[in-house]
Amino acid sequence: MLNFTHCVPTRFVFGRGVENEVGKYLKEVGATKALIHFGGGSAVRSGLIGRVERSLDEAGIAYVELGGAQPNPRDTLVYKGIELARAEKVDFILAVGGGSVIDSSKAIAHGTCYDGDFWDFFCGKAKPVTTLPFGAVLTMSAAGSESSNSCVITQESTKTKRGLRSELNRCRLAFMDPELPMTLPPYQIACGATDILAHMMERYFTSTDGVDLIDRMAEGAMTAVIAAARTAVKKPDDYDAQAQLMWASTVAHNDTVGVGRVQDWGSHQIEHELSALYDVAHGAGLAVVFPAWMRYHMDKDVMRFAQFAVRVYNCEMDFQHPEVTALRGIEAHEQFLRDIGMPLTLKELGARTEDIPALAAKTKKTNPDGTTGGTFHMTPQDIEAILRIADR
Amino acid sequence: MLNFTHCVPTRFVFGRGVENEVGKYLKEVGATKALIHFGGGSAVRSGLIGRVERSLDEAGIAYVELGGAQPNPRDTLVYKGIELARAEKVDFILAVGGGSVIDSSKAIAHGTCYDGDFWDFFCGKAKPVTTLPFGAVLTMSAAGSESSNSCVITQESTKTKRGLRSELNRCRLAFMDPELPMTLPPYQIACGATDILAHMMERYFTSTDGVDLIDRMAEGAMTAVIAAARTAVKKPDDYDAQAQLMWASTVAHNDTVGVGRVQDWGSHQIEHELSALYDVAHGAGLAVVFPAWMRYHMDKDVMRFAQFAVRVYNCEMDFQHPEVTALRGIEAHEQFLRDIGMPLTLKELGARTEDIPALAAKTKKTNPDGTTGGTFHMTPQDIEAILRIADR
Repeated sequence: MLNFTHCVPTRFVFGRGVENEVGKYLKEVGATKALIHFGGGSAVRSGLIGRVERSLDEAGIAYVELGGAQPNPRDTLVYKGIELARAEKVDFILAVGGGSVIDSSKAIAHGTCYDGDFWDFFCGKAKPVTTLPFGAVLTMSAAGSESSNSCVITQESTKTKRGLRSELNRCRLAFMDPELPMTLPPYQIACGATDILAHMMERYFTSTDGVDLIDRMAEGAMTAVIAAARTAVKKPDDYDAQAQLMWASTVAHNDTVGVGRVQDWGSHQIEHELSALYDVAHGAGLAVVFPAWMRYHMDKDVMRFAQFAVRVYNCEMDFQHPEVTALRGIEAHEQFLRDIGMPLTLKELGARTEDIPALAAKTKKTNPDGTTGGTFHMTPQDIEAILRIADR
Repeated sequence: MLNFTHCVPTRFVFGRGVENEVGKYLKEVGATKALIHFGGGSAVRSGLIGRVERSLDEAGIAYVELGGAQPNPRDTLVYKGIELARAEKVDFILAVGGGSVIDSSKAIAHGTCYDGDFWDFFCGKAKPVTTLPFGAVLTMSAAGSESSNSCVITQESTKTKRGLRSELNRCRLAFMDPELPMTLPPYQIACGATDILAHMMERYFTSTDGVDLIDRMAEGAMTAVIAAARTAVKKPDDYDAQAQLMWASTVAHNDTVGVGRVQDWGSHQIEHELSALYDVAHGAGLAVVFPAWMRYHMDKDVMRFAQFAVRVYNCEMDFQHPEVTALRGIEAHEQFLRDIGMPLTLKELGARTEDIPALAAKTKKTNPDGTTGGTFHMTPQDIEAILRIADR
């Protein structure tokens, strides 16, 4: 196990109807005027924004609204949000939505307190040192942004998607009502579950010894997510399935199953290029990239992939041929993704074979030697090979 | 899954040598003068207190010392600590030790800010509304007090052991070096592991549906703790085993495996009476009480006890006779406790048969109807029957 520090100061308020308590909790943290940030009109039409605003009214907290956040949130709207937050002198940013809205809100919160261009934080030119407090009313179980230290924004002019890791990215408050995602299309529920699993898997496929505790917690959590996802895409109104997915989105991405170990994140880097170029759902992109990544790397750590197969997908261990077990685990994962309606190939995503070299070349190099990924260091040639596996 | 709120704002600093960074982190949270609270002379003789003080010196933080905290920490020392903290105008309480020292420190921190008698918080006469900030350098993996919302103190004059649950009980900082418990006798390591498991089991044996995610994370964590405990009692210098136990002590008691569900805590209430009367180690008392509690209650929820047997102790499921499987799980747990050197009977603890009625009568009633326990509500007669199972 590696040395680590860990702190998740977010207050989680979880359960039926918690969006009606937003005002009370914002008041407790000293908010007086909030910027309510959301995506499309559905949050308004469903009455959710109305319930949140009623709760703020009751607590005597003023607010302004900014809608329009899109999947793969854009820098252009972040600039608008910063301008509005400054003009209206808000002291709290409240996201009402999923990961994209929350990430957009984080960027607005940081940018409001920064004299320069907020994109500096995303292209590595500067680090945020302070931020407005912010929180989220979560409407979708997926990105885990309600509790993670990460934030991903797309620069619209260059179609560049870049992430920022910072402890300032932790929400002060997270309101999590498992009834809210019940109205989502099954495809979006499935994309969310795929994202949740991917967050656990990026941490799970590690080269660190002595992490049995974290491994086993991750394996238990993945097993539960797979079962809950199968239920929720068929019966979106199953409260317990939605509750498992919603809490799992948080557990998956706040390092509950990630402390003390090397993490990979190569699949996420590759996927960022897919969703930036084709504007596909992040979860759908991960469903295509991750199994190809697994197939490409499994020979380098067969026993870990076999462990995944046995403990998560209940495959029988082939002690003579662990690589057979490892492969069965990948196939079981692909079958699961297929069962919940996810794409498995670049074609299904609408991606083009001829774009592969450019996608591979553009993928962010996360290591000093110009490679990508924490566990398996990949050159652009490796990434190209992975994308070709997905191009079937 | 039940509605819940959850917030663990503790900053965990985990790994080899982190006690040398105490000063840096205390400075970050604004401390200027600390009360260093510890137990016996071993913390001084081992050089640990010296290392901590050097770190405070380097950061320019003043300090005073208060040693002498005992297992089952006493109100008498808490009163001394409050007096010292006030006289010396300290602004941070730093525990260096295990759960007893940390609990004693929490009580000192709360009491320093309270005009009345701090015992008011433990006998239910008052609730703490503010506290001095406090933290811990953990020397023993057991109670989870470094991250829990709980604190247990014994009133020396009446031999009454009482707990306080409050969000004010969360440490600001927890320094966790898995090398520190390596010098403990194997018996103490085993007591700690038993306590860790008991914290998970009090949460696990629940009457709540729809908690598959939390169940599976708990089962994974328990499996890992059992393996790590077997290693650590034989090879106390096994870093990875000590690291699993140390992080598990935190995971077990900060509700990572407890959110959204009814929890029981009946075994803890019974054990409190044992350790208050006979001054036995809390873990040893739990090793005696918990299996007896399991045997007494298993018929009321056979399938949950069978699930525990199958998923944690790898017992084969007897689909015709799940009660056989349930019993095998309890036997496997007893065998594990025996293997790591724990007592299983009241006699081994030094407890007397003739004390059983008084122990049962004195056990804290946690429910409005005068019963004890969240999942299985026990009358004093039930508790007496459980103690008689342990009196073999």
